[in-house]
This record gives sequence, structure tokens and C-alpha cells, in this order.
Amino acid sequence: MTERLAIIDLGSNSARLIVMHIYHNDAYNLVYHQKEIVRLSEGAGESRVLSKEAMWRAINSLKVFAHMCELVQADKILAVATAAVRNAHNGQEFLQLVYQHTGIPLQAISEETEALLGYIGVINTIDVKDALLFDLGGGSTEVTLIRDRQPLEMLSIPYGSLNLTEMFGTSDKITEEKLNEMRNFVMGYLHRHTWLKNLSLPVVGIGGTARNIAKMDQKRKNYPFPKVHNYRLGPMAFEELWYALIKTNLTQRRKFPGLSNERADIIIAGTTIAKSLLDVSRGTSLAISGCGVREGMFLKYYLERKGQKEIIPDILAHSTHNMLLFYKGNESHHYHIAGLAASMFDGWQPVHKLGSREKSLLNVAALLHDIGIAINYYDHARHSAYLVENARLFGLTHREQMLAAVVAGWHSGYSAKYVRHKLYSEFLDQADWQVARRLALILALAESLETTQMGLVRKVEATIAADQAHLKLITDDPVVIERQAVVQHKKWFKKELGVDLVVV
Amino acid sequence: MTERLAIIDLGSNSARLIVMHIYHNDAYNLVYHQKEIVRLSEGAGESRVLSKEAMWRAINSLKVFAHMCELVQADKILAVATAAVRNAHNGQEFLQLVYQHTGIPLQAISEETEALLGYIGVINTIDVKDALLFDLGGGSTEVTLIRDRQPLEMLSIPYGSLNLTEMFGTSDKITEEKLNEMRNFVMGYLHRHTWLKNLSLPVVGIGGTARNIAKMDQKRKNYPFPKVHNYRLGPMAFEELWYALIKTNLTQRRKFPGLSNERADIIIAGTTIAKSLLDVSRGTSLAISGCGVREGMFLKYYLERKGQKEIIPDILAHSTHNMLLFYKGNESHHYHIAGLAASMFDGWQPVHKLGSREKSLLNVAALLHDIGIAINYYDHARHSAYLVENARLFGLTHREQMLAAVVAGWHSGYSAKYVRHKLYSEFLDQADWQVARRLALILALAESLETTQMGLVRKVEATIAADQAHLKLITDDPVVIERQAVVQHKKWFKKELGVDLVVV
Repeated sequence: MTERLAIIDLGSNSARLIVMHIYHNDAYNLVYHQKEIVRLSEGAGESRVLSKEAMWRAINSLKVFAHMCELVQADKILAVATAAVRNAHNGQEFLQLVYQHTGIPLQAISEETEALLGYIGVINTIDVKDALLFDLGGGSTEVTLIRDRQPLEMLSIPYGSLNLTEMFGTSDKITEEKLNEMRNFVMGYLHRHTWLKNLSLPVVGIGGTARNIAKMDQKRKNYPFPKVHNYRLGPMAFEELWYALIKTNLTQRRKFPGLSNERADIIIAGTTIAKSLLDVSRGTSLAISGCGVREGMFLKYYLERKGQKEIIPDILAHSTHNMLLFYKGNESHHYHIAGLAASMFDGWQPVHKLGSREKSLLNVAALLHDIGIAINYYDHARHSAYLVENARLFGLTHREQMLAAVVAGWHSGYSAKYVRHKLYSEFLDQADWQVARRLALILALAESLETTQMGLVRKVEATIAADQAHLKLITDDPVVIERQAVVQHKKWFKKELGVDLVVV
Repeated sequence: MTERLAIIDLGSNSARLIVMHIYHNDAYNLVYHQKEIVRLSEGAGESRVLSKEAMWRAINSLKVFAHMCELVQADKILAVATAAVRNAHNGQEFLQLVYQHTGIPLQAISEETEALLGYIGVINTIDVKDALLFDLGGGSTEVTLIRDRQPLEMLSIPYGSLNLTEMFGTSDKITEEKLNEMRNFVMGYLHRHTWLKNLSLPVVGIGGTARNIAKMDQKRKNYPFPKVHNYRLGPMAFEELWYALIKTNLTQRRKFPGLSNERADIIIAGTTIAKSLLDVSRGTSLAISGCGVREGMFLKYYLERKGQKEIIPDILAHSTHNMLLFYKGNESHHYHIAGLAASMFDGWQPVHKLGSREKSLLNVAALLHDIGIAINYYDHARHSAYLVENARLFGLTHREQMLAAVVAGWHSGYSAKYVRHKLYSEFLDQADWQVARRLALILALAESLETTQMGLVRKVEATIAADQAHLKLITDDPVVIERQAVVQHKKWFKKELGVDLVVV
């Protein structure tokens, strides 16, 4: 059943609305996103009372969201408030005001729930087994230790980019003394939690500060792809960025490449928390997640609806399947092709010498190589490449996603012209291009075996014998057309893999 | 009501199937295309009897099509046969065989119907007022004189690329004598129709030969965009191509860049007919149409279904609207933005100095600037640009479509980085980039006025006074948010148009 879900997340700094659409076939997609800066905790200070001005800023923003929910015909609204409301003495009063004026059933969630939702958002969209996760908001930072994809420890730090800025007055130019004071305060807090120390794990960051770290680093490196989710920096690169930031005053930060204007005052405090987490835990890298609490809320809802557990076993397979459904691909046909491709990949491994990561890229490309038809049937291979490149696929690095895109684009023969454009070349080197050609060759053979889309070639047996690659077609029919189609790729096969292809 | 239409067209040389999908909201799209070479008229010769072999080749291909129609769950099959069947003594017998063995209700259509369907396919997808249209098939060539978008004269030449090749034996190397003989034969035939002579009109070509002319010319010129529909060549360029072709033998032609293998034997005869038509009529240019009889059949059906006439008054508006619906855009919101943009365009014409063509590009970009959301909400401006670039929009040149794409991509501010990639740069020069920036500026202002998507700014009055551009917002509300959003573009406005923007 089709369903539109509006998800609202009211933080200390900003309010956000996303709208997710679930289609008839269970495919889902994000169809709207809106952000309003509300600074709800501003001026709450030690007394922990939300100010009238701040409350009305938030209510006015939520009014706009409520209107938008109507406009997009949302069937359901899930709305949560985090630290600012949770910690305020007048939090309940505020929630009632919100309901009265906007009709939004906003609920304050606990630190544990917030951490858990962030964890669900990340674990289902980034391929990590063991990692330290932090969700850095305006008024608190949720930290989760992930072991074997499970949450092992959790910690809620009652400081975020906004209240830490207020505490230490770091919105403009900052003296070394001031900085050290803030730094020591945060480090001291973290050091009390011994499980955090010396973990030597990858660190994953959620939240506006984290996303902005990615954007600033991308600007510094002239990164060619405007994608934040699963963007990775080394600890040194992050340190350099942080040093560059702390030297600036507010005016300079307003022009700092990649830094959003509305975050210029609170970025010092925000990045200092992140830096301290990396330092204490000896983080080996920093990955940014574009998915957090909101996506966690959605996935929890979506997976429950399907009667599934909240942790997806194979996020790449899941998100690839979702894309195939979203673009209305012919499921049985494409899974059949993917199966044939996998058999050939396995059987001819001694010749192509590629590994399991490449095999999963082949699978993605095999399942999605026709989705470009949704854009324009003519030239659809090129459109498939574009869609794979930009699809919400999870469990791949940016480079791997580019590689899968190229393979999808070459599914009926490789051409440097339209696929090897600038963007791909920034990510892929000579060796990658060879991988892409080999995977594309296997995909082209698999597709040839399904020319009539009738599943006539039920299975294949791919073997290597006497310097020849054998392909045995298991079928009940003569499969004249399929055989012709396969044979056309013999020359390419020889050129690419150096052995003859014999179809039996 | 949603509907899937399979359209089959059995010619003398090839059989083709397209599947068109009409969605709930009346948007339509091509979802499948298949071609089989059948050479149905091969060996029919003077006796005009379809050979057994040829008939069975066609029936086997149609069987595959019938299977595909089932697979894609077509609700209806419209199937026509042209010259080969129409002219054969055993045509009726063949049609019965087809029905017996495939269930496809194939019908032979007259020359007039064929010409009319081709005309409908072209007039609704290429922006021509007066032109000479030819549909060059394997066994006949339908010629239509279009005046004021209406068919004025029609002529069916009983020769096409296949039977003319057989008549003159021009499948391989051709002597000058042979060539002259064939040329004189065709020219002689054409000269008998005096209305054809010295028309001095653009010529539009349909059919496989015509499409192949485009592809060969694109290869010669290293054309950066793989799109055939509405591709244009000058008469000189076509002449050069023809001279290059007639010098080759079959083996050489099999490697001729852009020429499809299966057409290498019949291309000399095919291009000679086209060349003769251009010569006799003194054609001023040759445009290739990727749409012909099949698209004509679809559009006739689709427009009748909607109770509309078979000639769409404004093909650009129609196809833009179709794309907006296809990508599930918010109709009222986007038409409102387009209206606001048009008012500003008109009011500030003395400053931006752009004309009516640019105004229609602005309209396209305004209506389609959000369709990229269908790919990925994040970074959707870039995706909108990609979709506009590749959309089945009709009534634009390739260059104009690129320009509209860039404007859509820049709808929230211009950035050279992701839009100014190689492909666009091949089509657009300095002046074009300026046009794009100016249109994008107006679009950005219009979008700002619709920030809350509530239509609060009902209308605008844009005027020029005392070296300032005035923008008066007609509204019943204070529109605080909209006003803020507009004001943000003041700097850009001044930079781009050299005058100050004053919002009143």
C-alpha cells in the first residue's frame, strides 16, 4: 500500500522535515526535505527554560512544516524533539503549545532513543562492522560504540555545538586560552568514560556539524562529487581543517569555503567536540553519515511494516533492490541476469582474477543496468550509469559506486565516449577501468543469454580448460538467438581476458 | 486510466515494436523498443509475390514481438504493415498466416495512411511550419509537402532502399555508370511531379536510412550528443557524405563510421533517393526525425483518447507538460513559478534584452526545474539539468535543449562546476552562457517568491524606472519569507543586469 510519511526532528539548533514516499511495490524514496534554523535552546542557559522568543521561532517553523505536510498529502507525521525540549523545565508546556498551534504531535525522546535511532540510520546506510558513532546536535552529543554491527555502549554528552558555544563564548574570534579551556572541559568529560579510550576504530559522524566538516574538506580538496553521505577523511585531514578553523574570526568564517553561513558561529565548538572524540578514541578515520535520526525513524517504521528486524542484513542488496523496484525494473529478468553473471564470474575467476567486492559491483550493475529506461529508452545505458552514480545505494564507497555506474553504462559494449567523462575519471584509475571493462564484459554476456527475456538459458556452467573459457548453456530450447548474441562478444572476450570463449 | 500500448510496424526491410505507457495522470513514455531485420520484400521482385522464406522470417520475428507484448503486459496491440505487404499479390494470405501464428492483428495500410501517420509523427515532434517531408522505407518512399503545418501534397514513390538496391544491383561496389542510371531513374520519377521542384524548403527525413544519415554525419563531425531526433545537416554536408559513400564497396561500408552493418548493402540506394529529393526540391537543409509512423500511430491514439485534434498546437508546451506530469511535479506550484518568471521576463526586457525563444526556454526550465527530485532530492538541481538535457522534449534544437537544461540546473544560483561540463560546453558559447545566467536569475527570483509553495505572491509587476528594476509583489499577506528569499538575489541581479533590484 502506498504511503507518505512526514518525519520531523526538532533539535536545539534546527528543525527538519523529510517526506518519504512508500510506493505500491514497497519501493521508497525521499521526496522532500526542508530545514529551518530555530535555535530553540538559545538563551535557555543554566536555568533550562526555553525562552518565549525561541519557542515561537520553533512554532512558526513547525507551522510551515504542518502546511507542507498538507501540501504533500502526508498520511502520517512522526515528530520528535531532542535535547532542547528534553532538558527544559518547560518542555511539556512547549509540546502542548506546538500541538495547539500546529497540530503536530511532537514527542520528546530520551537520550537512549535518540542514540538508537541515529544508530539505526547509520547501520542501515553505511557498511561498518565496528565503529564509534557520534550524533552531534546543538544541545547534546549521542555516542554509540558499535561492535559487530550491534550497539555495545552508549553515552549521551549533554553538550552540543550550540550550548558549548554559549558556555565558552566561542562564536567569534577565539583566544588560545579560551580554546584550551573548552578543549580541556570536553576532553575531561570524555576521559571519564574509559570504554571510549584508545578504541582505534573508524569514527562515523551524524548531524549538521559533521555534514559541514565533509563539505569544508570537499572544498579544500576540490572533491569532484557533491555527496556527503559516506564521505571519508583521514584524522590528519580533519586535524588540518580544525586548525584552519580555530584561527579565524566570525567574519572570516562566513566566507570559509564549504561552511554554511548559519553555522559560522557554532562550528568551533562543534568541531572541537568531534576532534576530542577522535583524539580520545584514537579514531582511525572519520566518515560522515548523511543519514541519522530521521532516516532511522523511517527505516524503523518501514521495516516494522514489512515485519522485518530493524537491522538490514545486507544493505547493498537491500538498497539495490529498492532502486530496481523504484525504477520499475523487471525483477525476474534482472535477477536472472545477475545470477548468470555471478556464475560466469565465479567460473572464470582464474582468468579475470577479481575478488568479492568486484563481484558485488557486478551484481549491482546487473540488477540496475536497465533503470535508465525511466529517463529515455534511447541511449538508456548512459542514463542507467547516471542513475546508478546518483542513486541512494548504501554499502559502497563513492569510488565503488562510480565503478558500478560505469559497468551498468557499458552493459552492451564499452565506449569511452559518454561514460568516461570527467567525473568518473576523477575517481577511477587505469586499474579501475580494466575492472570496469571485465565486469561489463561478463554483464554483456549475461544479458545476451537473456536476449528474449524468457529465461530460456536456465543456468550456465563456466569453466576454464586448456587455455579456453568454456560456457555451457543449460537449457531445454535451441536458444538460437541467445547463442548468436553471445558469440558476438567473442572478440571482446579474447581481447579483454586473453583466452578464447567456447560456447557449448 | 493507465494503459500500455504495443505498436508494431512491419516494413519491407525491418519489423519494429515500440511499447508506450500512458500513466494515471495521462503522462506517457516509451518503455520498450525492439527491431528485427526481416527483409520481407527480398526476392519478391517484379512478380510481387512474398517468398516463403521471407514470410517465415517475418512471422518468426512477430512471434518474438507477440511474446514481448505478453511479457510487458500490453493492453492493446496496434500493428500495421506497409509497402511489402500492400504491394504483394499474396499480401492477404500473409496477414492471415501472421494472425494464425502470432495472434497479431496486422493490417496493411494504404500509401495515404502511411504518409499521414508519418506526418503526424513529425509535425507533433519537430517544430516546422513549411517543409518537405519524406519517409524512406525499404519498399516505398512517402513524400509530403507541409505548408503552415498542414499536409498540402502527398506522393508515394514505389521505391525504397531495398527494392531500388535489387533493381540496380547496388549492394556492393558501384560503377559510375550504374550510379548514374539509378540516379537518373529516381530524378526522372521525381521530375514528373512538378510541385516538388525548387521548393527551397527545409527537408525532414524519417526512417532507418534517414537516421543512419544522421549517425554517419555525427561520426564525421564527432558530434558530442548521441541524439538523432531533430539533428540537422546542411545540404553540402549531406552531399559530401553521399560522395564518400558511393566510392566505397560493401566491405568498406561495413566499417564506415556510424553506418549500421545491416544497412551497408542498401545505403547507396537509400541515400540516393534522399539526395535526389533534396536536389529536385532544392532543399535548404536536412533534418532527421526519430519519430515517424509508430509515433504517429501512438499520438493519434493518445490524442483521440483525450478528445483532442491530431495536431498539437504547441508541441513544446505539450511535451514539457508531459515531462512535468511524468516526473510527478507539483503542477500548480510550477505553473505559478513559470507565470511569475514570465512577468519578470516581460517587464525587464529592456534590461536583459532577450527574445521570445529565450522566453520559452525560461518557461521550460521553470516548469521542469524540480524534476530531478525523482532521481535524488539532494543535489536535485543537477539532476533536473540532466533530465531536461535528455528528456523527450519537442520543439527545441539540441542547443536550445542544453540551454534549458543549464537554466534548470542553476535555478538556485549558478555554479560553473557541475553544469558546465564538457557536453554543455560543446554546444554553448560565451553568449549562450550569459543567456543561461540571465534566465537562471529570473527563475531563481520566481522560485524565491514561491518559497512557501503557497501561492502567496499572486502576481508581480516588473518595471524599469530611473535605472532601477522594480518588482511589485501583489499579495494579501506580509510574505516575510518570500521577501527575504528574493532580497538574497539582489547582488546577483546587479552583477548580471547592471541595475539595482528594488522590491516594493
